[in-house]
Amino acid sequence: MNLTRRTELRRMPSRGAHDSDAINEILDAGFLASVGFCKDGQPFVIPTLYGRKAEKLYFHGSAASRLLCELETGTPACVTVTLVDGLVLSRSAFDHSMNYRSVVAFGRARTIAEPVQKIEALRVISEHLIAGRWMDVRGPSENELKVTKVLEFSIEEASSKVRSGPPLDDDGDYRLAVWAGVLPLVMKSESPIPDKQLVEGIEIPEYVRNYDARLSSPAQNRRNAR
Amino acid sequence: MNLTRRTELRRMPSRGAHDSDAINEILDAGFLASVGFCKDGQPFVIPTLYGRKAEKLYFHGSAASRLLCELETGTPACVTVTLVDGLVLSRSAFDHSMNYRSVVAFGRARTIAEPVQKIEALRVISEHLIAGRWMDVRGPSENELKVTKVLEFSIEEASSKVRSGPPLDDDGDYRLAVWAGVLPLVMKSESPIPDKQLVEGIEIPEYVRNYDARLSSPAQNRRNAR
Repeated sequence: MNLTRRTELRRMPSRGAHDSDAINEILDAGFLASVGFCKDGQPFVIPTLYGRKAEKLYFHGSAASRLLCELETGTPACVTVTLVDGLVLSRSAFDHSMNYRSVVAFGRARTIAEPVQKIEALRVISEHLIAGRWMDVRGPSENELKVTKVLEFSIEEASSKVRSGPPLDDDGDYRLAVWAGVLPLVMKSESPIPDKQLVEGIEIPEYVRNYDARLSSPAQNRRNAR
Repeated sequence: MNLTRRTELRRMPSRGAHDSDAINEILDAGFLASVGFCKDGQPFVIPTLYGRKAEKLYFHGSAASRLLCELETGTPACVTVTLVDGLVLSRSAFDHSMNYRSVVAFGRARTIAEPVQKIEALRVISEHLIAGRWMDVRGPSENELKVTKVLEFSIEEASSKVRSGPPLDDDGDYRLAVWAGVLPLVMKSESPIPDKQLVEGIEIPEYVRNYDARLSSPAQNRRNAR
């Protein structure tokens, strides 16, 4: 990945990184991206699921999706993933902050038309979201493949930004009688809701029951507890 | 709010809405936006916190923030808020989906320079994120205000999109021996981590202890349980 002014970290460069490991760790922890493109000077930002393999991200959707139809032209795109880790509550309004991890990636996308590659990209997206599911379900039919668009986004440049740890107050504020600290925020799963028409005797798969292991990252917990 | 091709819902229009109540409900449930702008044809998408008051959103940050410096020029911007409500696991790979609520809003921002309005906008952002906090903390000093930029984003046009409820499989797939259903996902707070230098005897405020009430929305739970 390259580094130019696009990904130069102007604010709080100490919170930022350009190395692939840090970037990939965040991309792998998340599954929802906000994807931006420009059309006649108008920005559009559309949420979409993704999967990652090396320095490629994969998107999919209806063949009629506006996002995918724009991206497949090869227009410059920006993919942003943000994970919220907690509220940072300081003694002054000014020093409030958020613990988070984010990646901003620049690149371009192309359509994957070849069926074997297309199915493989769909598998990558599915396994990224919920590993183990792909093997359990009916795979895509020829017609389903036809009405699905799959894009490969090549990351040309990316940066990550992380804020973690306790609030940092002005020296003079530590004497204030105000509660301060971190309120950790995490995404969790709740009890699975079985479909009403399940074939009898089917148990909830392990990858559904233990989905919180997919959602939590030890690194995140370490940071909040610092 | 107006409706033009920018916010026309091409995919799944049945999941979409343009009415302000639906849009505001989602904007009030979220607090993190992905904000897009274009610079020489290059899209940028940057995460930021926001507050809402009527059809205005408020952003703040360092006076040197690239996002805020670009937005304050009045360049067209796109603000997207996405709330993930659950994984929708169907019997076929194709019919997998996500339960979510999202808003895509188009508009332009301007800087709020006047100190009283600026402090009011900061209060709106703070109360949006964690109601009750603002009154407890030391307010911004003159210098803190000076190094903070506050923007008011006017929503010119917006649309919301919601997917809820169980998976919808092809008729022929209901006989498959595959577990299907919804795995609800929610953001939750964990035990607050008090700062190590707290003045003695300060209790955790009620708005911190009960922050999950801020995070959860009854509408969301109804949708997942449908």
